[in-house]
Amino acid sequence: MHKRMEKLIALINESELEAVALNPGPCLSYLTGLHFHLMERPTVLLITQRGEAAIVLPELEKGKLQGGGAHYQAYAYGDDPATWQNAFERAVAGIGLSRGSLGVEPTRLRFLEYSYLQNALPGCKIVDAGGLLADLRITKERDEIEKMKQAARIAQEAILATLKSVREGITEKALANTLIVQLLQAGSEPELPFSPIVAFGENSANPHAVPTDRALQAGDLILIDWGAAYEGYFSDITRTFTYGEVDQELLHIGEVVLEANQAGRSAGKPGVGAGAVDRAARAVIARAGYGSAFIHRTGHGLGMEAHEAPYIYDENDRILTEGMTFTIEPGIYLPGRGGVRIEDDVVVGEDGLESLTDLLRALLPVESYISSEVDA
Amino acid sequence: MHKRMEKLIALINESELEAVALNPGPCLSYLTGLHFHLMERPTVLLITQRGEAAIVLPELEKGKLQGGGAHYQAYAYGDDPATWQNAFERAVAGIGLSRGSLGVEPTRLRFLEYSYLQNALPGCKIVDAGGLLADLRITKERDEIEKMKQAARIAQEAILATLKSVREGITEKALANTLIVQLLQAGSEPELPFSPIVAFGENSANPHAVPTDRALQAGDLILIDWGAAYEGYFSDITRTFTYGEVDQELLHIGEVVLEANQAGRSAGKPGVGAGAVDRAARAVIARAGYGSAFIHRTGHGLGMEAHEAPYIYDENDRILTEGMTFTIEPGIYLPGRGGVRIEDDVVVGEDGLESLTDLLRALLPVESYISSEVDA
Repeated sequence: MHKRMEKLIALINESELEAVALNPGPCLSYLTGLHFHLMERPTVLLITQRGEAAIVLPELEKGKLQGGGAHYQAYAYGDDPATWQNAFERAVAGIGLSRGSLGVEPTRLRFLEYSYLQNALPGCKIVDAGGLLADLRITKERDEIEKMKQAARIAQEAILATLKSVREGITEKALANTLIVQLLQAGSEPELPFSPIVAFGENSANPHAVPTDRALQAGDLILIDWGAAYEGYFSDITRTFTYGEVDQELLHIGEVVLEANQAGRSAGKPGVGAGAVDRAARAVIARAGYGSAFIHRTGHGLGMEAHEAPYIYDENDRILTEGMTFTIEPGIYLPGRGGVRIEDDVVVGEDGLESLTDLLRALLPVESYISSEVDA
Repeated sequence: MHKRMEKLIALINESELEAVALNPGPCLSYLTGLHFHLMERPTVLLITQRGEAAIVLPELEKGKLQGGGAHYQAYAYGDDPATWQNAFERAVAGIGLSRGSLGVEPTRLRFLEYSYLQNALPGCKIVDAGGLLADLRITKERDEIEKMKQAARIAQEAILATLKSVREGITEKALANTLIVQLLQAGSEPELPFSPIVAFGENSANPHAVPTDRALQAGDLILIDWGAAYEGYFSDITRTFTYGEVDQELLHIGEVVLEANQAGRSAGKPGVGAGAVDRAARAVIARAGYGSAFIHRTGHGLGMEAHEAPYIYDENDRILTEGMTFTIEPGIYLPGRGGVRIEDDVVVGEDGLESLTDLLRALLPVESYISSEVDA
């Protein structure tokens, strides 16, 4: 924790910022080991370039600061919102903050906290520190990668147990619930990275499908996108299966997507841009004539967030370095008929990408997965 | 949906606002029936006082707008963040928005969306519309209350099934996982209102405890705070149980908290302030000499959010009206020994508060709950 905080303070000093403000989320947990919920009551940690730290939080949450090792000036407030602004004013006075730029996490800080901070700091400019804060966490340490591997193992164990429940007539919702139960039984933390997607037949052509009462029938594709959480780190996997006799073209797009997934996994290594991974996967699909049916980026960073940097899209020239972790998830979607997506989680190693997920990848009947569990 | 949108437009016209901006969350779903995830990509619905509506969203999510009944001007963007600002600029131009005040939901809108909106609308002032948007949803319609009753029934069925797993040595984490499984099996949607709290013995003295590997032993209190989700509406219940022979003072605080819960449930009716409900519950605990051990407000509004208006604290002079729904959850916490909280969900009826939750309330052994399920 201490080393991470030093890294943040060094990043602040390299920037134009006077301080950063973090509210509940992965950066705050990464730096402090503390977990707060993002609800109607604001919790904000302020860290200055001189390394001073103050936290504004509900009285009720103050107990979490005990025994945490690191020490922060704590400014707690009670149940009456009329008193909250004052806690922010005392906090910024306590660490001597009054002017310059205050950096915040754009996908976490809300208008609620923004307003309290801006009112307490009329001389400060609140700015987007998303890049700096992404840099803080973008390269994973060895123990973080181990936790991600464990999250992948849990997810894989859970899907194999779940597939045993696949039968004609089962609904997407019922299979999704079975998967959640199996994730918990396999050791996932209850706060999953996202609610699993289970999509049958034509629903698999919608990349962001939500489970419905659609019943499984012969001839369907089954697309499942799911993940587990282990000690705050996530996995995020997609596999597509066949149920009964499936249309030839659907089998064909399964082969194309598998090849695109392999091309993406072969394209990344230290020194290469994120965009190159996207282009490698996309080229396979375009060459097969399905370019316009691959309607999303090839992947996204993964770690303490389900989506984080680096994002894997054509225009992204971010250079990959060892320890970055992200998904590779090409897909082809044929509206009204079905879609195939094959998603793995990878880490940038010395010479290339190493997959954290090793479950069979090909578009095959459910039974093939149950009997042969691991892809070489 | 149409009526709700008209109500919002009327509220905007009664206010000083030119328009409101909503991003994914309960207000957006309440008004449109649409569900989006709050991730790294912004989704914002703009509604003007003249009733014009535009939505900025990822290309990938555009399919959700089809068949939705209501129609919005849609401004979709692709994977490259460099193009997103332009989508916001086209949207505000499309609905003729350029000056005045733009209201936002303070606990939902993030610095990400704030920045895109402020850049697109240099002539607009972005302001807190939390009060107006709370008014939109604070009084529940009959079918909303039915959904909350169903969420309560699911939660109660799930806890009774879960209590059968209580045995010496079971951990808080294991019991919490069992409860999640039972919630799903009883019909809860997978996105629960919050991760259940299961706290044994001394851990029950922490109102926001997170399940640990602490094993159950004779003499422990068992505090469980859990809820279910049904068609987007939540329940939120707490019960405390005894396991084996429990210290006399803990049994005594159980009686005091039950009386405080009853006092709170008797104090509310149309025309009374929210603060009166808090004071009624608090007075019982203070009179028994435990005033300083009741360290939180008496409750919070409940509906599509786990915490929403009206908040039940002393200083809140918000007048209760028929159809408001909130929790009543007094507690007494004795550090190092244990805590008792008894939480019900209530709706303001014509003459008083009606409880949506009717599970036995008293601090009793687990077995008493399993055999006698409903409180009169």
